[in-house]
Amino acid sequence: MAVHSAQIRVSTEGNGDIIDITKGVQEVVETAGIRDGIVNVFVAHSTAAVTLMEYEQGGVRDMQELMRRLVPPGADYNHNRMAGDTNAHSHLQAAIVGPSETAAVKDGHLVTGTWQQIVLVDFDDHPRDRTIMVQVVS
Amino acid sequence: MAVHSAQIRVSTEGNGDIIDITKGVQEVVETAGIRDGIVNVFVAHSTAAVTLMEYEQGGVRDMQELMRRLVPPGADYNHNRMAGDTNAHSHLQAAIVGPSETAAVKDGHLVTGTWQQIVLVDFDDHPRDRTIMVQVVS
Amino acid sequence: MAVHSAQIRVSTEGNGDIIDITKGVQEVVETAGIRDGIVNVFVAHSTAAVTLMEYEQGGVRDMQELMRRLVPPGADYNHNRMAGDTNAHSHLQAAIVGPSETAAVKDGHLVTGTWQQIVLVDFDDHPRDRTIMVQVVS
Repeated sequence: MAVHSAQIRVSTEGNGDIIDITKGVQEVVETAGIRDGIVNVFVAHSTAAVTLMEYEQGGVRDMQELMRRLVPPGADYNHNRMAGDTNAHSHLQAAIVGPSETAAVKDGHLVTGTWQQIVLVDFDDHPRDRTIMVQVVS
Repeated sequence: MAVHSAQIRVSTEGNGDIIDITKGVQEVVETAGIRDGIVNVFVAHSTAAVTLMEYEQGGVRDMQELMRRLVPPGADYNHNRMAGDTNAHSHLQAAIVGPSETAAVKDGHLVTGTWQQIVLVDFDDHPRDRTIMVQVVS
Repeated sequence: MAVHSAQIRVSTEGNGDIIDITKGVQEVVETAGIRDGIVNVFVAHSTAAVTLMEYEQGGVRDMQELMRRLVPPGADYNHNRMAGDTNAHSHLQAAIVGPSETAAVKDGHLVTGTWQQIVLVDFDDHPRDRTIMVQVVS
């Protein structure tokens, strides 16, 4: 069997909350005990996203401000009008960043930069519990 | 052999047409008959993209309006001027959303949220026939 | 062993420099000698990104201008103020485009469109040497 499967659970504040899940992904990779391969990190929710960035207070705030500027929460959206919802912007922000990233595993270790963390971004407009799928393939 | 390969063919209207291909991907996963793994969905065209979103009429229209606002079709682009083309905006929109997503397969099933569908977005400025590659790896 | 691992090294000018790495990825796929599978292309730096686009002079310039318009280098960013840095916009541009793409391998060949190349985009604000991870999984 060449697949090792695990899940990471986090509680978020929503509204662009960014959570560093690098350590969790590293632990899954090390438990898998493989040498070379890939690790896919995927969130099965349409208002959250997975990306990589330097997890640093200023950069986190910049990312939140950028997404609010590109896709303003207060704008007029069809989804909110037609479905009586309030989080149309969350859906759009999540679709742009995307729900998955796949990184390399080399010599048993997750290959990420020194200033590069794997993060969950929760764009929903209220706190949420999120499950992130981690699949190590070798 | 740990790879199951298939293709999904769709006809689109172009101009940001969004097609729900979740059922097609699910069928490929179930035909593969694997337990745990990943499924990569990839479109080999530079004016189309693959992402995940809630496939709902309002959200679909919001996504189309957002991409047209961020990358306006009528703007002045080098690609159009230099190559005598009309779809520079299509290329840019596709590069931002990206041509591939990779999702988890767990216990024989594609893991996606209840309100989360896999979609092809066709940004080209006219109707197109598109082939989407689906690779199940376990 | 179902994983073939290699690295591509490039020197960039930074500032949105876009480098076509398709041939390098193709060579890794052909060296792997597999029939069907996937190839993951990943850059372990938080100011660079991997995407696919038509590598054509006009389109390359359009992409650079778009990213500078959406995330202006000269704006006021927390990362620059708090960390005394100058490349906050580079981090944001890279996080939006994303550090990885995964493409299909079919009948021994990388499946990409005729007008679709795999590119490294270096958003940092000065020249950099970059290592790109290429993992072929079958």
